[in-house]
Amino acid sequence: MKNLLSMEHLTNEEINHILDRAQAFENGEASSLSRTYNVANLFFEPSTRTKTSFEMAERKVGCTVIPFDAGFSSMTKGETMYDTVKTLEMIGMDAVVIRAKEDEFYNELLEGINVAIINAGDGAGQHPSQSLLDLYTIKKEFGSFEGLNVTIAGDVSHSRVAKSNATALQRLGANVRFLCPEDWAGEFEAHHSWDGLIDTSDVIMLLRVQHERHKVNKSFSKESYHEEFGLTIEREKQMKETAIIMHPAPVNRDVEIASELVECERSRIFDQVRNGVFARMAIVETILKERD
Amino acid sequence: MKNLLSMEHLTNEEINHILDRAQAFENGEASSLSRTYNVANLFFEPSTRTKTSFEMAERKVGCTVIPFDAGFSSMTKGETMYDTVKTLEMIGMDAVVIRAKEDEFYNELLEGINVAIINAGDGAGQHPSQSLLDLYTIKKEFGSFEGLNVTIAGDVSHSRVAKSNATALQRLGANVRFLCPEDWAGEFEAHHSWDGLIDTSDVIMLLRVQHERHKVNKSFSKESYHEEFGLTIEREKQMKETAIIMHPAPVNRDVEIASELVECERSRIFDQVRNGVFARMAIVETILKERD
Amino acid sequence: MKNLLSMEHLTNEEINHILDRAQAFENGEASSLSRTYNVANLFFEPSTRTKTSFEMAERKVGCTVIPFDAGFSSMTKGETMYDTVKTLEMIGMDAVVIRAKEDEFYNELLEGINVAIINAGDGAGQHPSQSLLDLYTIKKEFGSFEGLNVTIAGDVSHSRVAKSNATALQRLGANVRFLCPEDWAGEFEAHHSWDGLIDTSDVIMLLRVQHERHKVNKSFSKESYHEEFGLTIEREKQMKETAIIMHPAPVNRDVEIASELVECERSRIFDQVRNGVFARMAIVETILKERD
Repeated sequence: MKNLLSMEHLTNEEINHILDRAQAFENGEASSLSRTYNVANLFFEPSTRTKTSFEMAERKVGCTVIPFDAGFSSMTKGETMYDTVKTLEMIGMDAVVIRAKEDEFYNELLEGINVAIINAGDGAGQHPSQSLLDLYTIKKEFGSFEGLNVTIAGDVSHSRVAKSNATALQRLGANVRFLCPEDWAGEFEAHHSWDGLIDTSDVIMLLRVQHERHKVNKSFSKESYHEEFGLTIEREKQMKETAIIMHPAPVNRDVEIASELVECERSRIFDQVRNGVFARMAIVETILKERD
Repeated sequence: MKNLLSMEHLTNEEINHILDRAQAFENGEASSLSRTYNVANLFFEPSTRTKTSFEMAERKVGCTVIPFDAGFSSMTKGETMYDTVKTLEMIGMDAVVIRAKEDEFYNELLEGINVAIINAGDGAGQHPSQSLLDLYTIKKEFGSFEGLNVTIAGDVSHSRVAKSNATALQRLGANVRFLCPEDWAGEFEAHHSWDGLIDTSDVIMLLRVQHERHKVNKSFSKESYHEEFGLTIEREKQMKETAIIMHPAPVNRDVEIASELVECERSRIFDQVRNGVFARMAIVETILKERD
Repeated sequence: MKNLLSMEHLTNEEINHILDRAQAFENGEASSLSRTYNVANLFFEPSTRTKTSFEMAERKVGCTVIPFDAGFSSMTKGETMYDTVKTLEMIGMDAVVIRAKEDEFYNELLEGINVAIINAGDGAGQHPSQSLLDLYTIKKEFGSFEGLNVTIAGDVSHSRVAKSNATALQRLGANVRFLCPEDWAGEFEAHHSWDGLIDTSDVIMLLRVQHERHKVNKSFSKESYHEEFGLTIEREKQMKETAIIMHPAPVNRDVEIASELVECERSRIFDQVRNGVFARMAIVETILKERD
């Protein structure tokens, strides 16, 4: 694994290797890297958990993290992504983690760049490290993906998470269903009501309503979105006993999910954050291992 | 001491413990922490000395500092302070240092959060680490607080420093007097002229005129503020021989204090900055010690 | 060498010492500093390569780098550069690297400040660390500067790089020629066409057209600038066999240089970035060595 660009590029073996390494890290195993590597995190969009999680994971596998302030870089003077990343390569980076507004920003980096690229979210494209931590969270819970009913609810067509997860979960044997307002489905075949989904799901994966990408339609107030598509207190009571709630966060409380449910017993929302550090340690280790 | 939120929460014993540890650090003693802790600094308002001082102090007591860019975090997408801090806890932080615009921002963090909270300035509320470094500066100078005349001059009602210091100094036995324009006194009983104060003070503590919080009143130009309430070259000559000048900085030169006096012999303004690192080492050590 | 402010302050011996240490670092030699020093990087203008290069170089010679967010410092509240740097000194910095908008910002830091100052670009003034890495790049290529024909082409009068390099190169024995549009020459005596320059140059040093400082004149479109003053594919073919192309970057592709030439065989544009880390290690080591 030279780069991590999209879940579609990963084989099931590669996915399982990362989930196994995440588990090993959670069990206290140390990094198997034989030397210190230099990495930089280039975040061109606001982020708390993904950026901080990578910062922590990189240090935990023994990397030196060189700070990079995306909002104050030469890209504000028109430098291309290619030239920026090539520059960081020449300065001595071994890997760069990038979040960018452009879908598939990494396409211009595939040729001529020798630093490893880790996609931390590309526009409305993929978010593979989130997907891998989601898979790790589900695997820890259920042991396997085979036959699990996973419902992904929300702003499906604009969600990097929906895309990354749908691909991987289906390939690993899960049964994925989508729920969203009619005009938010995009390329996905989606349900438009919780009927038949709420009491049959093993995993309910809520997506953030992305105010910054997609205005809540005039026909939806926050309240009416919550009422129709959110996980309300009433709906939670209809869930299967063993079912869990997930959300990539940041959460819009009382929109996607009732505020009282964010830390309820079956919620794995903050566990996902914790698992994210282990998943990202596995990603960074796996990619840098190729350079050992 | 689980958190540092406000001077009002500290006992005299706790204050004295921190001042003693600051002195020990200044004398070259090493941190007594038994392991490495992870901390993050969340500054939602501009800061040079407080932020950099914490960054230095944290490293000196052996912490790993995980960078956090407040202006580029998910709070810009509407995430709550609670969810942000809980996220950092799940990522592995042991303590977070927070400066925020909201008074008592920490109230929403008192329940459900297990990471230690250090208040680095809350709105027009408190600034306890500044207060502790001020106390340390005074104690180094005079040995004790008993009977000292301390005059706090300036934008009293909007000053975090005035509030934090007044509480603590009075409790430790000092005699605190306030000086400010009539409509700036707020809840404080204040003098409105230097008469009787300038030649009886052991400590003159000048406060920053906070242009960003409180416009200099139309009735005051910078020059007339300096003339009436500032420490002019003439007034400095009337000070007691052993008296010292303090200011939390940043200084508005020639407003609160004549520019020539900023580094005069009796000024402790830059010493305060130096002392701040020792005081913050003591704060961080004391709080993390509870987790050893 | 207490500070690095301008190439004009350096003797040829000091320049040669830095170039020798850069070579030693490139050969794998370790830093000769006897202890860990604290440094901060104050960048008041956007930068990718200079800032990241210093961040890397500082770590490689064993410094602790304390983060400083210029856009979020107390200078936004009106604190002076002097007070900011003095504050960082009191917090424990041994050196600060500064990029600022003001020409010769360092003049107000020459008295009263004990922290070492490294100029990373002052307004339209100097950029000595860039100059030293350029000299290192040329020396690696040709062994010496004696008699080399160096053509500096572009926005000469607004370029920190042109000023820093012209001084140093001439003193070291190179023959420096300038090329630019007629009204861009400023104090320099310049050519206004490539005739006689293109096939006689050992080094062609292209300068960035600084859209942010100096609008391309109404008489110039990007295309016509490239046609008249840029390094086109045709012109590159006329260069001497051993001649090299340099550019401080960021490059405006197809303005100063044809995009296809950025990584051509004779281009040293990305090698300069690589060399910059070694040159800056040498600068930081040389300056901190005085404090050993």
